[in-house]
Amino acid sequence: MTTDAKAKAGLEDVVAASSAICYLDGDRGILAYHGHDIHDLVRAASFEDVCYLLWHGRLPNRGELGDLQSQLAAARPLGEPILRLMKQLPASDGMDTLRTLTSALGHYDPDASDNSPQANDRKAVRLTAQLASLVATYGRLQAGGGPIQPDPALGHAANFLYMLTGNRPDALSTRAFDVALVLHADHELNASTFAARVAAATLTDMHSAIVAAIGTLKGPLHGGANADVMRLLIEIGEDSTPDRIDDAIRARLAKKIKIPGFGHRVYRTEDPRATHLRRMSKELGERVGNTRWYAMSQRIETLVKGEKKLNANVDFYSASTYYTLGIPIDLFTPIFAVSRIAGWTAHCLEQYSNNRLIRPRTDYIGPPYPQMVLPVEQR
Amino acid sequence: MTTDAKAKAGLEDVVAASSAICYLDGDRGILAYHGHDIHDLVRAASFEDVCYLLWHGRLPNRGELGDLQSQLAAARPLGEPILRLMKQLPASDGMDTLRTLTSALGHYDPDASDNSPQANDRKAVRLTAQLASLVATYGRLQAGGGPIQPDPALGHAANFLYMLTGNRPDALSTRAFDVALVLHADHELNASTFAARVAAATLTDMHSAIVAAIGTLKGPLHGGANADVMRLLIEIGEDSTPDRIDDAIRARLAKKIKIPGFGHRVYRTEDPRATHLRRMSKELGERVGNTRWYAMSQRIETLVKGEKKLNANVDFYSASTYYTLGIPIDLFTPIFAVSRIAGWTAHCLEQYSNNRLIRPRTDYIGPPYPQMVLPVEQR
Repeated sequence: MTTDAKAKAGLEDVVAASSAICYLDGDRGILAYHGHDIHDLVRAASFEDVCYLLWHGRLPNRGELGDLQSQLAAARPLGEPILRLMKQLPASDGMDTLRTLTSALGHYDPDASDNSPQANDRKAVRLTAQLASLVATYGRLQAGGGPIQPDPALGHAANFLYMLTGNRPDALSTRAFDVALVLHADHELNASTFAARVAAATLTDMHSAIVAAIGTLKGPLHGGANADVMRLLIEIGEDSTPDRIDDAIRARLAKKIKIPGFGHRVYRTEDPRATHLRRMSKELGERVGNTRWYAMSQRIETLVKGEKKLNANVDFYSASTYYTLGIPIDLFTPIFAVSRIAGWTAHCLEQYSNNRLIRPRTDYIGPPYPQMVLPVEQR
Repeated sequence: MTTDAKAKAGLEDVVAASSAICYLDGDRGILAYHGHDIHDLVRAASFEDVCYLLWHGRLPNRGELGDLQSQLAAARPLGEPILRLMKQLPASDGMDTLRTLTSALGHYDPDASDNSPQANDRKAVRLTAQLASLVATYGRLQAGGGPIQPDPALGHAANFLYMLTGNRPDALSTRAFDVALVLHADHELNASTFAARVAAATLTDMHSAIVAAIGTLKGPLHGGANADVMRLLIEIGEDSTPDRIDDAIRARLAKKIKIPGFGHRVYRTEDPRATHLRRMSKELGERVGNTRWYAMSQRIETLVKGEKKLNANVDFYSASTYYTLGIPIDLFTPIFAVSRIAGWTAHCLEQYSNNRLIRPRTDYIGPPYPQMVLPVEQR
């Protein structure tokens, strides 16, 4: 070993990169993209604004935003080979499909083997447009419908819901989904973004780095948690009384079963993203005349906070928000990717612009060196 | 920030995990798998022995080795949907194809969604068998042939060469390829293995973690270097005089162009793997009656060592070794994966067995917080 340091489990609080993209203060509960507070962005910026901000370090003016919207619209239609592949793969899991199809996109991308800054800027836009088309079309096929062509007149959030359902969404649904996209767009060195940077630091191509991120996001300790939250709510049962809900949660806590959607490596306060998703869950529930998922979530939040001192994180209220929007559970984690692709690509661009291979060491805890090697006949 | 530490560029010498798998002493030039020195393993162990060692922490006895060989043989045939997909994808790059097809394997794996230790042991064997079949079959199709069914009577190295070429290889070729597989099987927290562990630490499935590793290995600062070495040798030209070789290298050094295959983040000595690949390159060259690639490599090694004090690494002599074996350049990096899958899966198993989410922090260097967020009309 060249170092006598011990492993810091999970690299907790270890600084692994310098970055201008995300300002994250877990003690004060602050999340900001290039210094722009997430609460201000939710109020005054769209997901497309946030993409531009993450990639270029500042919000776009009207002309720049219009250009980006045109580029995204132009990149949205999926090619025939990609649609064929989607139909042909056994659709076991939305994240598996997204991983394989995003990898396949790399075979058809005109800039696939061009790692120049210009090509990578184009790929960031294209991947952002195409991941949304992949997930919406996958959801549409899973529901038994045929693929819907994107509508270039719609923004990113509205077009996603349109391609998923075949219906142009109303203002509240569009707004709720756009807010969810803004909230999930970046979160500093979360595991999937870190995986993307580890990959990009070998100077591999952007599709490879994004595929690494998708595979990482799939995990139940990361993006998979929002789907687990909804499965828990459904298991407890929509018509459960408050007592029944409390009993169900207490039984899990007694058995040391982790309640998904609570706690965060970085935040010691409320997750600032949960604040908005809680409100969205409530507003959407009131609109459709069913606030039971919201009420159940609130009850669980109060109980877990009281018993375990854990705050709800971004995954907890995104579950009931998406479900009330009529989105099937298998799409929850893929939708996380539809938003986080903005941050993943921004981190790739930043890594490429000032690169060094990311190659840490282990603390060796195996058998003493050297062990004897006998030929197989003598073992 | 919860920490005032500065980023250590590329996590150099930072300990990111405890591990019993690989003992790596860069100052003394020691590489050992579970304490077994790589030089001893090259002498007395096959790739299948090394797989067992990496997964189980000790070398197999005759019965255990036989069982593993049977399991690998049983897992080698590729399913019809995978072969169809391979034929249908535009074959732009071997690593792109390997990434997409390994991801597709996850859709068909009977244990895909089972993250139990037993299922993961089975997936490690299956992925090791199937990556070899994917790469050999891809190479065969690229050369215009039809897929060759694996021969269960052959070991892993011999069967790979058979599926690639359609001819049962002789003893020297089999031995050279087996040694190359043993040498590349693991190397502690190299970038692709680290990417696999970052992914696995979210408790994502093994296919997702391996796909992350493949995308990472593709980079020219990692697995892509062996192909770059051969492209350089060919560019200089097989018939070049020693002076012409020196001129070509000096011209690159003068322009600060990196010579691929030299230097290593960890080793301060000769890379112990280079020792064996140098010998293999020579022996294979002598056998086919063409030692010019070997001689050119040696000349370049002497020059770069003299001028830049850099040692040849694992990639430098693997280039001429593979080329002399008749393997096309586009397969060099995929073949790295055919070996490293043993280490990747071993590290996944170790990560799953004692897991903590890998989630470091950044050192924020962006604009001061908070930046003003104006609506687009006012920007």
